Amino acid sequence: MTEHIFPYDQLYKFTHSVFKKIGCSDAHATIATKVLLSADARGIDSHGVARLSGYLRLWEAKRINSSPTIQIVHETPSTAVVDGDAGLGLVVAPFAMQVAIDKAKNAGTGWVSVRNSNHFGIAGYHAMMALEHDMIGMAMTNASALVAPTFSIEKMLGTNPIAVAIPANQQPAFVADFATTTAANGKLEILQRKNADTPIGWVQDKEGNTSTDANALKKGGALLPLGSDREHGSHKGYALGSIVDIFSAVLSGASYGPWAPPFPAYIPMPENMPGKGLGHFFGAMRIDAFRPAEEFKQHMDQWIGRFREAKPADGYDKVLIPGDPEREMETVRMKEGIPVVDSVVAELKSIGESFGLQL
Amino acid sequence: MTEHIFPYDQLYKFTHSVFKKIGCSDAHATIATKVLLSADARGIDSHGVARLSGYLRLWEAKRINSSPTIQIVHETPSTAVVDGDAGLGLVVAPFAMQVAIDKAKNAGTGWVSVRNSNHFGIAGYHAMMALEHDMIGMAMTNASALVAPTFSIEKMLGTNPIAVAIPANQQPAFVADFATTTAANGKLEILQRKNADTPIGWVQDKEGNTSTDANALKKGGALLPLGSDREHGSHKGYALGSIVDIFSAVLSGASYGPWAPPFPAYIPMPENMPGKGLGHFFGAMRIDAFRPAEEFKQHMDQWIGRFREAKPADGYDKVLIPGDPEREMETVRMKEGIPVVDSVVAELKSIGESFGLQL
Repeated sequence: MTEHIFPYDQLYKFTHSVFKKIGCSDAHATIATKVLLSADARGIDSHGVARLSGYLRLWEAKRINSSPTIQIVHETPSTAVVDGDAGLGLVVAPFAMQVAIDKAKNAGTGWVSVRNSNHFGIAGYHAMMALEHDMIGMAMTNASALVAPTFSIEKMLGTNPIAVAIPANQQPAFVADFATTTAANGKLEILQRKNADTPIGWVQDKEGNTSTDANALKKGGALLPLGSDREHGSHKGYALGSIVDIFSAVLSGASYGPWAPPFPAYIPMPENMPGKGLGHFFGAMRIDAFRPAEEFKQHMDQWIGRFREAKPADGYDKVLIPGDPEREMETVRMKEGIPVVDSVVAELKSIGESFGLQL
Repeated sequence: MTEHIFPYDQLYKFTHSVFKKIGCSDAHATIATKVLLSADARGIDSHGVARLSGYLRLWEAKRINSSPTIQIVHETPSTAVVDGDAGLGLVVAPFAMQVAIDKAKNAGTGWVSVRNSNHFGIAGYHAMMALEHDMIGMAMTNASALVAPTFSIEKMLGTNPIAVAIPANQQPAFVADFATTTAANGKLEILQRKNADTPIGWVQDKEGNTSTDANALKKGGALLPLGSDREHGSHKGYALGSIVDIFSAVLSGASYGPWAPPFPAYIPMPENMPGKGLGHFFGAMRIDAFRPAEEFKQHMDQWIGRFREAKPADGYDKVLIPGDPEREMETVRMKEGIPVVDSVVAELKSIGESFGLQL
């Protein structure tokens, strides 16, 4: 699997132009590009430009509206429900997170549930929007059903990620961003490309038996919730994925559980959908709604510093803080460029040709 | 291991009298007893009367104040910080959860971080307080450090549970309540009593190697975060446990991470504690701050009903909804009585003797 290195700015210019070509306003194209490329910069390659063609197919299938009227449809001092008007999740999500931040300025916290949206890129981007306001940020989303609940063989939940960003002072922020499954689907895709097996505990086959087949999902199998099996706490991962689904979709009026709209445009929409589009959930908590922000951030420095110093096990250099690997990757890639695998480069070129754009 | 069956009322009367004997007001003894025994009723035996002697030893060591002045020390429309005045967590937690519920009535949601508290029983009790108000309830707490972060051999976090309770209409409520470790410490204690091994993935030895020794913690080992090892997502369990620690203790001014006060009174308090006592975090979200409560609860019925019907794997009857096992256990035990193992019966008798009370 070979790859080509692109400077961030080159991918930015191309992606921005593509979003404009499908009818996004300049402002929408800008935010969509920033969110999408934040995944490539941070090393979450499955959620960056590799997904651009997927978004375009959804737009072609008229499942994405490139000029949505995104609006608050219900609110209280600390809550809102946002209807995304079938827009790009890359645009709807930052709008909704900003509503949460604005609510938190007045009420101490803000909580926004979103319906009628689409795939929103990496959850971490949205959660991190809170940091510069001295707030804790949270973001989650439901997604196409790929995960079987404990004891089941039926795909009922998405990989339903949770992101939490917490500011510190001298230390970089604590940024957790993870799928509520044992392994994210992107990791499976990497193994598929390599024709490699998965570790035990990532997937099950169509009968519900443990499998190491990276293609198990295409054969009727399913991803496993965080914990892998009942003995190792998969009921906890199943509960976490369920909470994300309910906060994101049942609370907002989006389509939930096995009725979540599938990301691949070639998969037909589920029948009798109980709500509109995908759902997200965002939270912002103003630190000084609890204690002075400087005091909190100094304690976060002490928390992070102490965990960095935790004794490592043999064979490991150090204990990592959530967000460390992605932040380090971002520093490297913004300087040295972003590697894109050949198959994705070919997709981008083909997109460019169809719109008269050069990569 | 033999056991004796007690009617709930008998345990209630005894426990209530014990709390009165140590100086609790009648109101505090009542709520403390209800919270403590909700664990026995729901089948979480490690967190019920089996812990009564532990609470008493903390009281003897003057680490629990039986007549605390619990108060709000900071607040905004949707947030508060509560100082528990070193009271029983069994009393402090319901007070703080009620503050969250009251905030939610006015602001849509309420979020309360608590410092200077002690062990609060089962998280699920507090989260479920929200249900009768048509609210979603959340509860979490930090705890004595027993868990090693991914790549580490040092115990830095507690089992830090998360509970989320979500109301439905015809269906019983969705109630998730789980430690952010692969296995709760109570499960390890059961294996210790039986002299049995643990499954692989629950604990590590003092070098950080996988172990099946149920006594590994006493030999310098540690509990593992949900996910067990890096390949199976232990960094996600580590992140979840960290988030619980930060929301509960860094946000409130309690003592966090490896400085969390230990539950066993014979273990000395850590030096240079960065805050006061244990910390908790509670949330309440009014359903109709997002959409009409009846509409939401009907969709929750559909959500729960659909998940109950998910195709079971061979060898399993059905898919469970979080809260099912505990609710079914509660129905049985309130009717047929609560089994208490002999060693705990002996402890309770000895407590009774020291206070002139009959079990």
